[in-house]
Amino acid sequence: MRDATHHATRDATPGRVTIADIARAAGVSLPTVSRVLNGRTDVAAATRRRVEDLLALHGYRRRTSRAAARAHLIDLVFNDLDSLWAVEILRGVEKVTHDAGVGAVVSAVHHQAWSAQQWLAGIRSRNSDGAILVTAELAPRLHAELRRLGMPAVVIDPAGVPAFDIPTIGATNWAGGRSAVEHLLSLGHRRIGMITGPSAVLCSRARLDGYRTALDSAGAGADELLVREGDFSHESGFAHGAALLALDRPPTAVFASSDQMALGVYEAARRRGLRIPDDLSVVGFDDLPQARWSPPPLTTVRQPLAEMGAAAARALLGLADGETPDGLRMELATRLVLRHSTCPPRRS
Amino acid sequence: MRDATHHATRDATPGRVTIADIARAAGVSLPTVSRVLNGRTDVAAATRRRVEDLLALHGYRRRTSRAAARAHLIDLVFNDLDSLWAVEILRGVEKVTHDAGVGAVVSAVHHQAWSAQQWLAGIRSRNSDGAILVTAELAPRLHAELRRLGMPAVVIDPAGVPAFDIPTIGATNWAGGRSAVEHLLSLGHRRIGMITGPSAVLCSRARLDGYRTALDSAGAGADELLVREGDFSHESGFAHGAALLALDRPPTAVFASSDQMALGVYEAARRRGLRIPDDLSVVGFDDLPQARWSPPPLTTVRQPLAEMGAAAARALLGLADGETPDGLRMELATRLVLRHSTCPPRRS
Repeated sequence: MRDATHHATRDATPGRVTIADIARAAGVSLPTVSRVLNGRTDVAAATRRRVEDLLALHGYRRRTSRAAARAHLIDLVFNDLDSLWAVEILRGVEKVTHDAGVGAVVSAVHHQAWSAQQWLAGIRSRNSDGAILVTAELAPRLHAELRRLGMPAVVIDPAGVPAFDIPTIGATNWAGGRSAVEHLLSLGHRRIGMITGPSAVLCSRARLDGYRTALDSAGAGADELLVREGDFSHESGFAHGAALLALDRPPTAVFASSDQMALGVYEAARRRGLRIPDDLSVVGFDDLPQARWSPPPLTTVRQPLAEMGAAAARALLGLADGETPDGLRMELATRLVLRHSTCPPRRS
Repeated sequence: MRDATHHATRDATPGRVTIADIARAAGVSLPTVSRVLNGRTDVAAATRRRVEDLLALHGYRRRTSRAAARAHLIDLVFNDLDSLWAVEILRGVEKVTHDAGVGAVVSAVHHQAWSAQQWLAGIRSRNSDGAILVTAELAPRLHAELRRLGMPAVVIDPAGVPAFDIPTIGATNWAGGRSAVEHLLSLGHRRIGMITGPSAVLCSRARLDGYRTALDSAGAGADELLVREGDFSHESGFAHGAALLALDRPPTAVFASSDQMALGVYEAARRRGLRIPDDLSVVGFDDLPQARWSPPPLTTVRQPLAEMGAAAARALLGLADGETPDGLRMELATRLVLRHSTCPPRRS
């Protein structure tokens, strides 16, 4: 077991409280805080209580005591369980936890604060070793509470720049968006539509910026009529795809910010009697298993979701063991997977 | 807390040991067994040991003692986490466990006995309240072990007739297969191909029998050349679909025993330049979320996977609370969902 002094050194990352801070605030010596942390009985009750309160107030992580009482459980929390996106991440997490002899408790909070509260009650009662949050919008609130409980957490694909010292795992969204559009440009497309994800979600903005940068670099410039904001769902891809195809000068290619939206565009094209790729090129984002089996197989930007889940699980198990994460923000590489949904335009 | 005599009465289901059986085998009175079960100290050590051994040997479920030490965790174990099939079941399970304040630990055993052993070690150490097995082939082995541990279990969609007294949740596969083929017959199809699931899996055989019965009832008779055994995957649907379409007299319609195989048939048709439904009608099975967004939207037999997951979770939580299941085998209804992948044949 590491001693508390060693902890104090390792804890000296910005924004994280050290046991020296606690000692100062409690008006006690550093060894006294250390004795409280190590569960020693040679501390006066009132002093112990004061130190305990301060440790809780500042969300100090008691690594050694947690490590001793490991539940061998981690929590994985999604907003929804309604897409292969979720199952891909789960697959990666499960592979790592299975090998580590740790159980992965899977929950959904359905975008709702009350549901998140209920989940917090659960994670408290089972004394989970930590949590992977795939629920970007609730992450700051959940994390504040997890921190209070002294539970490590990792966020996958956050919606915004996290305002706290929590490791996040994402993908190179900007580079992915750029590669999709560069591919279409190289085929000769110039009128390229884009259906983005929600603008409040950071990864959506990164993919859109990649689209704009690729067009700018080619001197093509973006026609704002061709950029539509979807919400990653099939439905929004269908609606915006239909709207784009109904324009006087429709695009010859569409880049959709998710495979589900790309498949919505497939259906919009089919309803107009247009064939893919002959009449319309389509590129998606994610590379979910169904992308390979869309008729025709979808060219898409692969986001390594299972690998992201695995990386998050490894980072979390490391935190639970008292390790310091290598970096607070990790981006795994995306890459363009060429299949059969793109070809040169009929007329450019 | 219910008394043990009451348990003995409720336990009198076929194949389940009662405390009267234990008392007889141990050569002691029924109240003595009851005292052992209730953790009373007024039983001689040797007698207690003899009774304990017999209880373990016969897998007697100590309901009251388990209920007192509830971990508020259940285990959900799949063979693989690679399809929306799994996420649909998980969604149903999670809804029920979330509302009950219970965590669902999700694992995959990857069809492998060593992996199942590792999972058993995990479930033992976290003292789970019970398990839902969605891994048909390993179910008997896992269940025997769970029974030894006194952990309740429920199986979803078993591969074979279970040889043990474990509640199973399935769907009306035979009726579903029949409804798919009756629909195609009503459109005028007579040469109807079928791509089945693995013949070792009971639900595959039920769907195939439904196909045969529908054809027989219509006096159409099955052409054995048109029946192919797949494995539920996109790949097998594609391979068998391509083979069926390459026949001298190809079918005018194909019923695939999973949506994934139906999408494989879509791709096989596309490669031959055939349009769905004009040139080929296709019906799937499952109604996964992507079925609605296949171009064209897939007509399929809806299997209520989320509801099956929810029913399994409710049954398991009931067992963990010491309730007797309503029935050992439950089949939830399937229903045909009409979309745009079928129409009358060009020539019948």
